[in-house]
Formats: sequence, C-alpha cells, structure tokens
Amino acid sequence: MGKTRIGATTLIYPMPTVLVGAHVDGKPNFLAIAWCGVAGSQPPMVSVALRPDRYTLKGIRQNWAFSVNVPSVDLVKEADYCGIRSGAKVDKVAACNFNIFYGNVDDAPLIEQCPVNLECRVVQMLELGSHCLIVGRVEETHVSDDCLTDGRPDVDKIRPFIFVTEPSRRYQAYGEIIARAFSVGLELEK
Amino acid sequence: MGKTRIGATTLIYPMPTVLVGAHVDGKPNFLAIAWCGVAGSQPPMVSVALRPDRYTLKGIRQNWAFSVNVPSVDLVKEADYCGIRSGAKVDKVAACNFNIFYGNVDDAPLIEQCPVNLECRVVQMLELGSHCLIVGRVEETHVSDDCLTDGRPDVDKIRPFIFVTEPSRRYQAYGEIIARAFSVGLELEK
Repeated sequence: MGKTRIGATTLIYPMPTVLVGAHVDGKPNFLAIAWCGVAGSQPPMVSVALRPDRYTLKGIRQNWAFSVNVPSVDLVKEADYCGIRSGAKVDKVAACNFNIFYGNVDDAPLIEQCPVNLECRVVQMLELGSHCLIVGRVEETHVSDDCLTDGRPDVDKIRPFIFVTEPSRRYQAYGEIIARAFSVGLELEK
Repeated sequence: MGKTRIGATTLIYPMPTVLVGAHVDGKPNFLAIAWCGVAGSQPPMVSVALRPDRYTLKGIRQNWAFSVNVPSVDLVKEADYCGIRSGAKVDKVAACNFNIFYGNVDDAPLIEQCPVNLECRVVQMLELGSHCLIVGRVEETHVSDDCLTDGRPDVDKIRPFIFVTEPSRRYQAYGEIIARAFSVGLELEK
C-alpha cells in the first residue's frame, strides 16, 4: 500500500462541533469549534483550542470559566452560524434563540437546547502559536431529560454530529454500529 | 425542557479511536485511545491523554516522540485489541499483523494499514491527575494513496469510525450528510 506525504497537518477523525460559551463583558456568547478533546477523568478535564483573536476567548480570559455545549442534529443550523459570525458583531444568543441557564459556575453560560452541557473552570492556558489551548476542569454536566435512558446519557437520543472538511465541508450524523467495543478485538486471540 | 445533573464528566461527542504509537525500550507499541484532539494549526499540534501507568507512555517519555494513527472500519478489530491488551505483556504489532514504517521522526512508528498517520514530537506534558496530557507538534502526515482524491485526504475513502460508550460500548461508522458547513447557518439571517 503506497503512502503520500501531505505535510504536517492535524488530521484526526472524527472531529466534533461543540459550542464553547463564555461571558464576554458580562454577556453570554458562543463559538463553534472542532478542536475540543478530553484531557483527563479524575478530575474530569477537557481541552479546547481557540485562536487568540476570538471574541469568546476574551471572555474566557476575563473569568477563567467556559462551557462546552454539544449540539444535536436538530441544532446544526445554529451551530454552523456560531462558527461563521463573531459575537463582536452580532448577538448569537438572540439570532439562535438560545435559552441560557447556569449551573455552579457563574460565568459559564449553558444552552438549554443542547442535549449535553459541561461547565468548566480554566486550569491552564497554553499559548501554542496560532491557538491557545485551554484546559478546563469540568464542574458539572447537565443532560436533557429526554436524552437519558435509565438515568444515563444515551447517544441515540442525543444525536450528535460530526464535522467533516474533505472532500467537502459538511456535517454528518452517526451511522451504523460496526462492532462491540472492548470485545471484538478479542477475536484476534482465537 | 428539563435537565438532569449527572456530576462532572467528560461527555464530548463524537469520540475518536486512534492508535497512539511509540518506541518502548526500542520496540514499537500501540495503544488505542479516545482522548485525542487538535491543539493548534500553526504549527500543527495535537494532544493525547494517557494514564500514567500506560506502557506506551513509558516510550513517549523515553523519546519525546509518538505517532497518531487513524484506523478505518476495516481495522476495528485490531484497534479494539490495542485498547484491551498491554504492550507490557503481548506484542501487539505481531498480533495485529501491523506493517510498521517511519517518516522523519525516528521514534514515531507508523502503521501502514491505517489510512492516516501523524508523526509527532512532544512539546509539553501536563500532569493532570488521572492522565498525562501530551501536546505534540505534528512533523509530517502520511495518507494511504487509495484514500486520496485529487491529492487530498477523502473521508469517504478513509472511513474512520466513532467510539461510543452509552447506551452500549461500541463503534459506529459515519452516517448520512445532514448539512453543508459554513453555509447552512446563514439561513438564520434570511
């Protein structure tokens, strides 16, 4: 199998689209980003990477607090909008008709319509060149009641989506189940 | 819409499964992880979170180098296996019949069968409690020739998959296209 070198890139699959929220000058704003990951479990930590000129980053620096909101396929239009426009120019909460609520962290605005919401306090900010990598400790998770099964978050009800850039910039739903995890690999030992 | 607090968690969707590679005591080893993200674009940076007792982490500490290999659905069995067994006890490269190759970074072993391979040098290691968050600068990307369209990586040919934990631990393929990115959001302004 031949390989081609395409230069240094950040090709990781699948890419999420999440809405990062913060209070900027006391007002909630949200930014859609794909560069978000988990950084640890005890304590629960997540990381988000933002360009230094992002309006939302200004708010995160002001309060050392932010939220991560996972949109469902029903919110793809609003999520996309939050990645196109800047809060410096438009009121995204109004444009998207987001209902905002709060948990334990005063300056981490949460979007009621998003099925999953994480409220976070900043632990570290790493300046990595084009982006600032923010590591946040998750203080609480909120899940929409209609996305729970036996009290646990259920991806089939949450219906998150995937961000794709090539061969075209688009969003895709989750597809078919291909195997059981922590199970199918054991077939290699048979 | 009601919300339920489920405690502090790291619920981000979608979650990847990637194979992180390193030389441990001079021998290639690979670990499947879900906690991997992008940290910046210029220079290209990725982050991976590993538990301190991971055999692969030992190798990353030895050489300050690692690889990120994106498996396709065809490799779900091998990827799952690399998340179940430890390189301290089994030779995963042999068990999975991986063909190993190298690019610019001597101690970043790459898996030929994976359609996308990133070779990385460690920039920072953050000890965050249960996990060590490793930020790596990507030095080169390798893509299988049959996964390129007009010289660019094509997700429809790469066929990556998603890791799911609830309502059951499983892997899912990419599903239907639901909207155009950087486009559908503009409908909110009409």
